[in-house]
Amino acid sequence: MLTLYHAPRSRSTSIMVLIEEMGIADQIEVIEVTVARGDGSGAPDAKNPHPEKKVPYLTDGTDSVRERGAIIAYLTDRFPDAGFGRPVGHPQRGAFLSWLFFYQGVMEPLLVLDWAKIDHPIVQATFRDMKTVVTRLAEALDGQPYLLGDDYSAVDLLLSSPFQWLPDAAPDNPAVKAWIDRYADRPAMKAIAERESAEVQA
Amino acid sequence: MLTLYHAPRSRSTSIMVLIEEMGIADQIEVIEVTVARGDGSGAPDAKNPHPEKKVPYLTDGTDSVRERGAIIAYLTDRFPDAGFGRPVGHPQRGAFLSWLFFYQGVMEPLLVLDWAKIDHPIVQATFRDMKTVVTRLAEALDGQPYLLGDDYSAVDLLLSSPFQWLPDAAPDNPAVKAWIDRYADRPAMKAIAERESAEVQA
Ligand SMILES: N[C@@H](CCC(=O)N[C@@H](CS)C(=O)NCC(=O)O)C(=O)O
Ligand SMILES: N[C@@H](CCC(=O)N[C@@H](CS)C(=O)NCC(=O)O)C(=O)O
Repeated sequence: MLTLYHAPRSRSTSIMVLIEEMGIADQIEVIEVTVARGDGSGAPDAKNPHPEKKVPYLTDGTDSVRERGAIIAYLTDRFPDAGFGRPVGHPQRGAFLSWLFFYQGVMEPLLVLDWAKIDHPIVQATFRDMKTVVTRLAEALDGQPYLLGDDYSAVDLLLSSPFQWLPDAAPDNPAVKAWIDRYADRPAMKAIAERESAEVQA
Repeated sequence: MLTLYHAPRSRSTSIMVLIEEMGIADQIEVIEVTVARGDGSGAPDAKNPHPEKKVPYLTDGTDSVRERGAIIAYLTDRFPDAGFGRPVGHPQRGAFLSWLFFYQGVMEPLLVLDWAKIDHPIVQATFRDMKTVVTRLAEALDGQPYLLGDDYSAVDLLLSSPFQWLPDAAPDNPAVKAWIDRYADRPAMKAIAERESAEVQA
């Protein structure tokens, strides 16, 4: 049995949406933990086994997985029939892995640095900038609704996720905006958003 | 046939070492390109298909892979018999993927920010710091020579690679230092380092 450590309305919410999309909720026990939040609320939770007390964190008791990109690759490979990944040998395997690593290694650092208003020639040389990221997204979405073609996959979930929670950060590009809205409209996304906002009110 | 776009003595050198370790050089055509270097030398190469003219970039003609973590996951999954990865279903699959994404999403951003001398509460909150990264490495190396146990794997290559090229950045931790030296001593590493320094002199 797999266990996911999760904090509502945090980066681990994307993994909850993935689990809902894949229909594998019966295969994964979810344990809610608190985390230190950006607004100063919350606190690290002693029962969270993540070495830095972050979420998400997935474990089968022996092996464990940290970082959203890793968790998405792990789950989509482990449950290939759910169809949200691109299994080893699939003709889009390289593109699938590239989007996951591009998100984690380029896009998320750029979003964080943008948010912190940090700009530096070394940062620009290494990661380029959000404009370049949006150009990559818009190129991929040229003539197709999702990053890998006609069908939604887990990379749409990961790469559009920051804009779901920070609508102000959404880029001013019609194709990219339409793609963000397309994802916001998915039943799994709505179900999890509703469940987590109900928890806040309860 | 796979094609790797490579620039000697750059981030793509790690992929050359991986190919040598895995014994798959006959499966991959290597095309050398120039890249804009940190020291101001070099320039983007029109024949490099990478959308930002970076290296490494791997393609089979249709599908393509960017970001070292993605290329390592792709190659080790595609050639599982070479034994440098942890295939889907392996009891260390989660740990293997976690190190790859931790490198790309946490350790490399921190190295770049350290190098640019950027320090900011938002950076600290999101990525923590190099001290925390070194703590994670030292924990993993406690009582075993390599990150995943007694045997070398592709995650040792990726996570120790920055310290091979920037020895001054090597952390002041005996277990981590010994691990860096262990990797520097591997025949594949020595062979590629020798070949690339010969090319510079030629
Ligand atoms: N790179 C990690 C980031 C995880 C992360 O920073 N999660 C936040 C929640 S939004 C957290 O747990 N913060 C608590 C803390 O940093 O102490 C991932 O993508 O999984
Ligand atoms: N995150 C990428 C980084 C690739 C990268 O920045 N490569 C450098 C070589 S060390 C490059 O091609 N630089 C040329 C440029 O930025 O124009 C990876 O890990 O593959």
